[in-house]
Amino acid sequence: MERLEKLTAGMPLLVGGDRFTTVPTDIADAFEPGDAVLVADTGEVLHVPDAERRAATVAVDAAVAAFDLMGTATDEQVSAFYDTFANALADDTIFVAIAEANAADVEAARQKGRSTTRLELTTRMRNDMVEGLRGWRDMPGGRGEVVETVTHDGWRVEQVRDRLGVVGFVFEGRPNVFADACGVLRSGNTVVFRIGSDALGTARAIVTHALRPALAAAGLHEGSAALVDSPSRAAGYALFSDPRLSLAVARGSGRAVSMLGGIARKAGIPASLHGTGGAWIVAGPTADADDFGEAVTRSLDRKVCNTLNTCAITADRADELVPVFLDALRAAGTARGVEPKLHVSADSVEHVPSDWFDRQVPIARAEGEVKEAQAERIAADELGREWEWEDSPEVTLVVVDSIDDAVQRFNAQAPRFVASLLATDPAEHDRFFATIDAPFVGNGLTRWVDGQYALGKPELGLSNWETGRLFARGGILAGDSVHTVRTRAVLDRPDIPR
Amino acid sequence: MERLEKLTAGMPLLVGGDRFTTVPTDIADAFEPGDAVLVADTGEVLHVPDAERRAATVAVDAAVAAFDLMGTATDEQVSAFYDTFANALADDTIFVAIAEANAADVEAARQKGRSTTRLELTTRMRNDMVEGLRGWRDMPGGRGEVVETVTHDGWRVEQVRDRLGVVGFVFEGRPNVFADACGVLRSGNTVVFRIGSDALGTARAIVTHALRPALAAAGLHEGSAALVDSPSRAAGYALFSDPRLSLAVARGSGRAVSMLGGIARKAGIPASLHGTGGAWIVAGPTADADDFGEAVTRSLDRKVCNTLNTCAITADRADELVPVFLDALRAAGTARGVEPKLHVSADSVEHVPSDWFDRQVPIARAEGEVKEAQAERIAADELGREWEWEDSPEVTLVVVDSIDDAVQRFNAQAPRFVASLLATDPAEHDRFFATIDAPFVGNGLTRWVDGQYALGKPELGLSNWETGRLFARGGILAGDSVHTVRTRAVLDRPDIPR
Repeated sequence: MERLEKLTAGMPLLVGGDRFTTVPTDIADAFEPGDAVLVADTGEVLHVPDAERRAATVAVDAAVAAFDLMGTATDEQVSAFYDTFANALADDTIFVAIAEANAADVEAARQKGRSTTRLELTTRMRNDMVEGLRGWRDMPGGRGEVVETVTHDGWRVEQVRDRLGVVGFVFEGRPNVFADACGVLRSGNTVVFRIGSDALGTARAIVTHALRPALAAAGLHEGSAALVDSPSRAAGYALFSDPRLSLAVARGSGRAVSMLGGIARKAGIPASLHGTGGAWIVAGPTADADDFGEAVTRSLDRKVCNTLNTCAITADRADELVPVFLDALRAAGTARGVEPKLHVSADSVEHVPSDWFDRQVPIARAEGEVKEAQAERIAADELGREWEWEDSPEVTLVVVDSIDDAVQRFNAQAPRFVASLLATDPAEHDRFFATIDAPFVGNGLTRWVDGQYALGKPELGLSNWETGRLFARGGILAGDSVHTVRTRAVLDRPDIPR
Repeated sequence: MERLEKLTAGMPLLVGGDRFTTVPTDIADAFEPGDAVLVADTGEVLHVPDAERRAATVAVDAAVAAFDLMGTATDEQVSAFYDTFANALADDTIFVAIAEANAADVEAARQKGRSTTRLELTTRMRNDMVEGLRGWRDMPGGRGEVVETVTHDGWRVEQVRDRLGVVGFVFEGRPNVFADACGVLRSGNTVVFRIGSDALGTARAIVTHALRPALAAAGLHEGSAALVDSPSRAAGYALFSDPRLSLAVARGSGRAVSMLGGIARKAGIPASLHGTGGAWIVAGPTADADDFGEAVTRSLDRKVCNTLNTCAITADRADELVPVFLDALRAAGTARGVEPKLHVSADSVEHVPSDWFDRQVPIARAEGEVKEAQAERIAADELGREWEWEDSPEVTLVVVDSIDDAVQRFNAQAPRFVASLLATDPAEHDRFFATIDAPFVGNGLTRWVDGQYALGKPELGLSNWETGRLFARGGILAGDSVHTVRTRAVLDRPDIPR
């Protein structure tokens, strides 16, 4: 093997063993010895300059060193860290410096014409961070818990819950996620973050005025929660290609997150993320019509990852439930003061009154109001397409032969995320849960999927199953779930028979 | 992206972003469209012909289809499968065909001059397989176990233990491992195996005469345990690069296993394997001399992965314990009727009598008896080097400042596998467990690390931590540990506040 000293434009780069992409001219020109080049599953070629690699390496070095020291840190020290961190954020004299940095970030983002909705550190966000940290403070760490003991003559084996390693987080410009991610310290792990450039000033201020002083006061290594100090996305790529990470978490969704997940997986790092969202509701033969209508309307109150995206109704109930569905969809629009948008699977068009297809209505899109047909036909193999609507609730409808048919379509086409069955027969629910390949399964609205709301635990991330299940872990990643199991043998006499 | 239609000799292939290797001439010549080429972390270029890819794909296709159907299979069906499989192997009229195939495999291997020790399906191996399958039969599956319930007003969330997915196994020519690997069906997973070419005939006979009939009798899909029907190693590379696997297990150790693990990790598949073995024993300030000597001797009874490889003694006890260690090492040699071999860390040479270095003794090596110095000096940064001895027990000795010093050397140099501390102070044991980065920690002999022996559970594989911890799982992989967690919401009323 040789060191990569230069890249040539047009040079082929392998993707997955049997395809290739080529080096773009701009990357070939920019590449210098010491830089790295990564190839995403999509074929996209990513340039990681040496400076960004070093920014990530320095932070991971610190977190690895801190992880070693965390072995002897006590649960009380970790609690003290959260307490001091929360108090610092709650302290107006300390917070003023953070607020100033945030105001500068918001102003800079505004001048670049970027959204500042999630960037602005509002009073509510500040309080949520304080509450979140106090939540971590009051949770048990779980370290050292003996989950199983096997006793032999003269010796025993204990399976002991223990900390996992260094966790890498990449998230866009939301300062509060920064506090959330510190949750992995609860169970003895350490963390490295990379935050979007818009929020980097705020993050630096939080580190300087609250995080580091809290680590120091608790006697924890400053690398226990290390910020990758770079505004470049390439630093995030570098972080996720460092195989010293035990887990990579990317917040948000979409193509950028999906690509980050691919980078981590190629480096052998388990990745928790959800590239694609969108929930399914299935109404089966025994569905209660009112409950179904309410679940549809209430799963369309706003567009987030667990919003209803695809609704399947079994054919035997279509005559009754398609109208209920259309009314519920209209109600969701009315609640937001807009018209809704419907997509109908090509094989189900006959079940929807033709006036839905004929009617032109204003749909509230990102670029403004657009006149469109209220309903459009969509190919039957496009049921997994996620609608990224702004204001007008937007869903796909399909009429299926049976619940099993709906499950098969979900397993084949959906991003395998959230599924609800409306049915009054418990046996149908059990079969649905057993056969549908989703981490989150319910019997009503789909919007319950949220670690804080559903489990009462601060949430680190959601793990969609689109590209694989997390080994021995489910879909919601909370700080206390980031652990491993170690085995300890206690021999009571030196001559056990082996 | 384009399809890879040809390879050119000398064409650069990226390794890890900043290095490259080149396509060897023989692979460039052999490559045809439809083939794949993989690059190992070592820079080795692997050619996977289309036929081998298809052999792997067919088996994974079957296992994926079977996994879907396994959702509705009951625990009783799975038990019936193990029972029928075991009975078939125990049935002399059925077993005769398997024994014939095995005799042919053994004969063919013998003619090629290969080892047949582990290939021959002895009565003992046959009985072990029958016992193993009955062990799986009698274990609980764990599917559907509610591991946590969070109750809200009007609804609740259940965290449910559930099956993980398709598990890929690659192992060399040991027919019995084939039965072991079926253990993952216990918890509702399905499995694809690739067995070494020497044992392929035996494996085919087991499939035809015992495995498939047992699946059919239990009403399970025949793809639930699918054999990759190819004698080529490339079929194993193809299997481990199929991202539909949820877990990849490679049995054995060494470079081939390590490379397989790298292939799986690059495909985003968690890998359970141990490329390198070798255990450490640390004797601390409070060690009991007799217990220490016994632990050393008894950890050197034969060369397997958990054999003592490196012994660290704290300096304050060196005068007393180095002689104990040398006596124990000699005793281990005497027990095997041979002379032992010692390596001494360069910084510790003064602690070993010079006659050990001066004495020429016969050492029983793979190539036969070789005259060597009984002790040799080894660089202080080579403590992790594993001795692959044949008959003469072979170990490294280092004298360290403290237990912490030993732990630091272990974390930096060892393959992070098995560690024992000899100490009578419980606080020292707790600190050792908290700081040493090993999945298996004990207080005496190192040879206890074995799933069957230590946990009383059929073992699928050992997961060394050399290249990463398995997420939320420890070092011994048993069939019942291959699971995930899914989340189920049960809404008692349609209007929960969200």
